[in-house]
Amino acid sequence: MPFAVRYTGARTLDTAPAHSSPPGPGEVQLAPAFVGICGTDLHIFHGDMDARVSTPSVIGHEMSGRVVRVGPGVEGWRPGDAVTVMPLRWDGTCPACRADHRHICHHLDFIGIDSPGAMQQCWNVPASTLVRLPAYLPLRRAALVEPTAVAVHDVDRAAVRDGERVIVVGGGPVGILIALVARAAGAEVRVVEPSGHRRLLADELRLTSWDPATDDIPELVRQWTAGAGADVAFEVSGSAAGVSTAVEVLRVRGRMCLVAIHSQPREVNLHRFFWRELTLVGARLYDRTDFETAVSLVTDGTVPVERLISRVVPLAQASTAFEALEGGNVMKVLVDCTDGARGASA
Amino acid sequence: MPFAVRYTGARTLDTAPAHSSPPGPGEVQLAPAFVGICGTDLHIFHGDMDARVSTPSVIGHEMSGRVVRVGPGVEGWRPGDAVTVMPLRWDGTCPACRADHRHICHHLDFIGIDSPGAMQQCWNVPASTLVRLPAYLPLRRAALVEPTAVAVHDVDRAAVRDGERVIVVGGGPVGILIALVARAAGAEVRVVEPSGHRRLLADELRLTSWDPATDDIPELVRQWTAGAGADVAFEVSGSAAGVSTAVEVLRVRGRMCLVAIHSQPREVNLHRFFWRELTLVGARLYDRTDFETAVSLVTDGTVPVERLISRVVPLAQASTAFEALEGGNVMKVLVDCTDGARGASA
Repeated sequence: MPFAVRYTGARTLDTAPAHSSPPGPGEVQLAPAFVGICGTDLHIFHGDMDARVSTPSVIGHEMSGRVVRVGPGVEGWRPGDAVTVMPLRWDGTCPACRADHRHICHHLDFIGIDSPGAMQQCWNVPASTLVRLPAYLPLRRAALVEPTAVAVHDVDRAAVRDGERVIVVGGGPVGILIALVARAAGAEVRVVEPSGHRRLLADELRLTSWDPATDDIPELVRQWTAGAGADVAFEVSGSAAGVSTAVEVLRVRGRMCLVAIHSQPREVNLHRFFWRELTLVGARLYDRTDFETAVSLVTDGTVPVERLISRVVPLAQASTAFEALEGGNVMKVLVDCTDGARGASA
Repeated sequence: MPFAVRYTGARTLDTAPAHSSPPGPGEVQLAPAFVGICGTDLHIFHGDMDARVSTPSVIGHEMSGRVVRVGPGVEGWRPGDAVTVMPLRWDGTCPACRADHRHICHHLDFIGIDSPGAMQQCWNVPASTLVRLPAYLPLRRAALVEPTAVAVHDVDRAAVRDGERVIVVGGGPVGILIALVARAAGAEVRVVEPSGHRRLLADELRLTSWDPATDDIPELVRQWTAGAGADVAFEVSGSAAGVSTAVEVLRVRGRMCLVAIHSQPREVNLHRFFWRELTLVGARLYDRTDFETAVSLVTDGTVPVERLISRVVPLAQASTAFEALEGGNVMKVLVDCTDGARGASA
């Protein structure tokens, strides 16, 4: 019987046998291989999103796996196909959908938050969410396609161009992925990150990093840009200080891309937006094109995601993955769904 | 002898004979006709900008007038030509100038703030600042070309398109001009303004206006846009509440254009920028194209600026113009520089 990890309440996960139903019309049954844990999953684990997430529920939305069975009416997919999932379902009728911004549907179903996610051994999803993976791409790496698609979307929203100077404020997994994607777009990149562990990884990836606790970031940017300021700043830290830094370092007509979730209003130096004619763009999720670009970047090694994987834990020990993330000094932690029964039986 | 109005310290103006020197190389001597007073002039009058404005100094930068004499090396201008002035001098060498954003020069000389302005009967300016006016355009109206150029620039920065629904938060002179220019661009416009006097003018100009004190603005926008939200919101109020309103009413991928000067940081709902992928663009001043467009819009009556002129006072009574602005219930107040000696001799 397949197992599933279920969120049952703040700081509590269980691993339980899960009933598997055959895929319905338009659905495909997957065997998830690897599932990454992101900041939102951690918020759920902490109980911060109980108003949105019912219990018990299976979470997880960064995944790779294989097709097991296809439901009625599904064409183009066969058992064994390697896939990842773009975990979005939209209503197609709201004003955002009609304006062709379906990924921001007013009634978006984010699979893995609003409906059952990937942290299980048998998962039915709409065939429309599948994104094909090359057969030779290791599934371990492919679990990072989803966060890479986030980064691709962010770099696209900021319209990063060849030769531009880009600051990434916040060097967690998404910040590092943005830095790598921006570099692939031809930008010179600097990462601002207080954690020595994360700066070390940035350095290993040949990304220059600065420590906001000891470096004078605005002065370093002035020197770097001959007094002009940076072309683009990504705010990925989620902190008030990160917002201030991003606004302060931009050149005239510079663009700030807001990636992080700020759950409370932030004080923003709007005078600077006026004075330098800055632009702020919000960036959320991705669309299919972003996913396909991400598959390419991960496959050809332009974005060496393997370096971001700090640890892989078996399905039944998923809670240790969350605890590792809380402990810091890790980047991406994966849950290995093919290795579930062992842990569950222990 | 020509007279000049001089700011001599907080809340104090004097009218004094001014020595007129011949225009230098590349300069033109103007006889200002009408000078409008803007919010920045009022800030100067209040002493809020004493760190930037030396005393005594002649202020004023919204003007119309005629060429009196041309200096050595000046071509294309003749005595009697009707002109307005784009009151900007840039260094041409800073990073912003080199990136072709000269109006945001790092060392911008804003004529009328950083160097002597128009509130005088004899004014030397660089010929490069002159903008030609049609001979048949009344100079009284032409004094509003400069704030109209601001509005043209703002509407351009927000990229307002035909058929879009636009909210203007703040119905002072610049807000009303933005509303009129946006309407000329094909937008449907709503003006949010608490002052009954200003809403009355908006209504007279066939601009629908809403009162934030009694109307539920977000609900009205929902009804107006069938639940989608507005395409564009201009923040022209300078208030914290105005910022909140502008952010709240925008549709997915909506654009907020920041026009007002917020001298202190504001709390901004950045989560909304993320969630709806909003864009914020700062807008400051104008360039020559904006001025030329403004001349056209004022000349052909598309922007009926005459309706915005609440009062015209003689040069020597300039301080009454500032006091009228402080009292509220006025829109634009002009100083008539051709009518100076009478007041001064009184």
